Amino acid sequence: MIGKNTGEEPERIASTSSMETRPNSIEDWPSRAWNLLSKLRDQSPLVQCITNFVSMDLMANTLLSAGASPAMIHSIEEIPDFTPHARSLCINVGTLSSDWLPAMKAAVVLANKFGKPWVLDPVAAGASGFRLNACLELVGMKPTVIRGNGSEIIALFKASLGASKGVDSSHESTDAMEAAKSLAQASGAIVAVSGAVDIITDGNRVVGAHNGVPMMQKITATGCAVTALIAAFVAVDPLHALEATASAFSIFGIAGELGMNMAKGPASLRMHLIDSLYSLDQVALLSHTKITSL
Amino acid sequence: MIGKNTGEEPERIASTSSMETRPNSIEDWPSRAWNLLSKLRDQSPLVQCITNFVSMDLMANTLLSAGASPAMIHSIEEIPDFTPHARSLCINVGTLSSDWLPAMKAAVVLANKFGKPWVLDPVAAGASGFRLNACLELVGMKPTVIRGNGSEIIALFKASLGASKGVDSSHESTDAMEAAKSLAQASGAIVAVSGAVDIITDGNRVVGAHNGVPMMQKITATGCAVTALIAAFVAVDPLHALEATASAFSIFGIAGELGMNMAKGPASLRMHLIDSLYSLDQVALLSHTKITSL
Amino acid sequence: MIGKNTGEEPERIASTSSMETRPNSIEDWPSRAWNLLSKLRDQSPLVQCITNFVSMDLMANTLLSAGASPAMIHSIEEIPDFTPHARSLCINVGTLSSDWLPAMKAAVVLANKFGKPWVLDPVAAGASGFRLNACLELVGMKPTVIRGNGSEIIALFKASLGASKGVDSSHESTDAMEAAKSLAQASGAIVAVSGAVDIITDGNRVVGAHNGVPMMQKITATGCAVTALIAAFVAVDPLHALEATASAFSIFGIAGELGMNMAKGPASLRMHLIDSLYSLDQVALLSHTKITSL
Repeated sequence: MIGKNTGEEPERIASTSSMETRPNSIEDWPSRAWNLLSKLRDQSPLVQCITNFVSMDLMANTLLSAGASPAMIHSIEEIPDFTPHARSLCINVGTLSSDWLPAMKAAVVLANKFGKPWVLDPVAAGASGFRLNACLELVGMKPTVIRGNGSEIIALFKASLGASKGVDSSHESTDAMEAAKSLAQASGAIVAVSGAVDIITDGNRVVGAHNGVPMMQKITATGCAVTALIAAFVAVDPLHALEATASAFSIFGIAGELGMNMAKGPASLRMHLIDSLYSLDQVALLSHTKITSL
Repeated sequence: MIGKNTGEEPERIASTSSMETRPNSIEDWPSRAWNLLSKLRDQSPLVQCITNFVSMDLMANTLLSAGASPAMIHSIEEIPDFTPHARSLCINVGTLSSDWLPAMKAAVVLANKFGKPWVLDPVAAGASGFRLNACLELVGMKPTVIRGNGSEIIALFKASLGASKGVDSSHESTDAMEAAKSLAQASGAIVAVSGAVDIITDGNRVVGAHNGVPMMQKITATGCAVTALIAAFVAVDPLHALEATASAFSIFGIAGELGMNMAKGPASLRMHLIDSLYSLDQVALLSHTKITSL
Repeated sequence: MIGKNTGEEPERIASTSSMETRPNSIEDWPSRAWNLLSKLRDQSPLVQCITNFVSMDLMANTLLSAGASPAMIHSIEEIPDFTPHARSLCINVGTLSSDWLPAMKAAVVLANKFGKPWVLDPVAAGASGFRLNACLELVGMKPTVIRGNGSEIIALFKASLGASKGVDSSHESTDAMEAAKSLAQASGAIVAVSGAVDIITDGNRVVGAHNGVPMMQKITATGCAVTALIAAFVAVDPLHALEATASAFSIFGIAGELGMNMAKGPASLRMHLIDSLYSLDQVALLSHTKITSL
């Protein structure tokens, strides 16, 4: 049973670890998601974020609330000493400039060298030639996961300046399904597309995460924040990046759903989302997780 | 009737567009403000912000809540590709440095070339010679609107380092009335001065927006946020920048008033303000808008 | 009576100013803390912050809520004009890069020249050689106060790359007691270590501030924010930096305790903390302040 509230999840958890050795089996997604969140809270992985100025606050608070230990260290002088100690790396080009790009690449090189997973957020990939080229270079450096909205993934796939409107998507995630699969095959990355349904693919398998509420799009940097959360999840399960990504999407979306019950608008939703992520328990997670094969 | 709750606004809205062609007529400010907010929500204009680090989060969330699409893109490499697609531009010198200034100017040149309105926020204009000179250069590049506090507008008018205390004003907006008028005449910009009463002038006409609550000054970047909101409003009505500016002030102030009903301090006010801006409806807007000729 | 709720504080306040001339007397900490907060609210000192991108929003809002006037001005071009007007300076290396360091040093030189107190926050001091060297250079420039977590203070004391995990401490504040005392003696600074008990020392005397709640560690930049608050407190009492530092710690902690009564998680705690700091009154402050000699 996938993505349904079974009401009998607790005893299944015991079997999760053996299940992980059978990646092609029918997933018990709720149990897997809970297992990963529990690991995250136990291990508190250090996640290095080289990210945009707008997102830093929400991203750091998202990671802290989920149980991770964020570090926004971006200076190229520090990468050689610091990056090897991080469990994963999040690269986000939201406020890209030519002086930050070399540090991003240097950190990626080290993450790859030390076998650490890293996640790319190609914010507004089609907004300029400079940005698109930077994103394509980063895509070529073997990210573990690429997480964008429909317009961004299409821009990367077409390698062309999009008709995208700044940082907001002008495409549904489902519009980008084929682009995502092709990009995954070409890059070797898990490609994840945010939308009404979040799509996650390795180029063959396609999974949908159905959690979240529309108002999350009215809060700046929620996309950036879920990318960082993905980085935290792949840190604790680097060998199952697709599953970790789908779980992160679903859990962030559940926090949004629970938060929405108390919210009166985007700003209170932001607060309640983070609070809900912090206190998310097994019962709520198991009953809300909606991940399906597509 | 100006700035009063008439209780019969809905049918007036039909006549708003014809009213816009009579800029010297007695304004029905509440209807105009509602009309502009509705347009903003419908059109979701892309607003490029080259702004300070402190304000980015609140500014982006203010724009999103109002219905606009913010993009914090500041790199000079991206300006030629990106700025022509923006509907308006917001330039804010709050954390100015020599490496950001050329991008600000380049974006302004393109905005002017493509006939896009742009708004200048001369944060702490009198804090240093470097900053004052930068602001004066930008003032000379024909901004559509200049929005500052009393001390900032006086510093620009006098072209001298002020006795201003950092980013907070040591002058009431009304102290800057004559400076604002002269600056408007000299620059060709609408000049807007935040304060207990927000003053908006084209050098001849002077309008006051009387909404808002004092505690908004205890939230960082509310001034920056209202400047960005002005940029969004002039994006949807570039030919009536004075009216768009007054409307933006009033609506932001109303969101503060409604938020204040629920707030227990500056941080909860910030949250409720954004929530209120998001859900502001016609009845509340029409009954609260207070804009008068001064 | 130290750090206890006496229920009879109001009449003691009259004697606070005379008490300040007897620094070695038994402290009436609650009255001192209230006295300093009152001064801060009255004087609204201008506090210049050269700080990291993650913390700017919370730091500015903390300072505003406490009654200070924050200014995040970091450009080296502006330091000569601006820094002499600030009442104190807060230097925070959280997102350090080589282009920001010279401005930090230039501001410190001017603060020292003009006799303004300045506070150093050596965020993640042991994270890289570049960062450690920068912090050690700054320590050598005679900060009034150094505020870090246990791992940071130990890294500075040992002048070595720590086993610290990014920005989060892997040491209790009490683990750093001896390091703090030695660092204070060597540098001439008050050294303050955040933790379950906040420790403040001038190298001889050691004081503990016992306020705060554990969940504050789940909000990004609370450490940065308390450092900024210390800068505001030393601005209004530069001759008693130890006492000002202990008071700032205690008051920020009390705001957290009061906020925690209303909070449902880290994000609502952040909001309620700032609200509580803004509205903190004499009765609550006097009854909650817990500062003791250690």
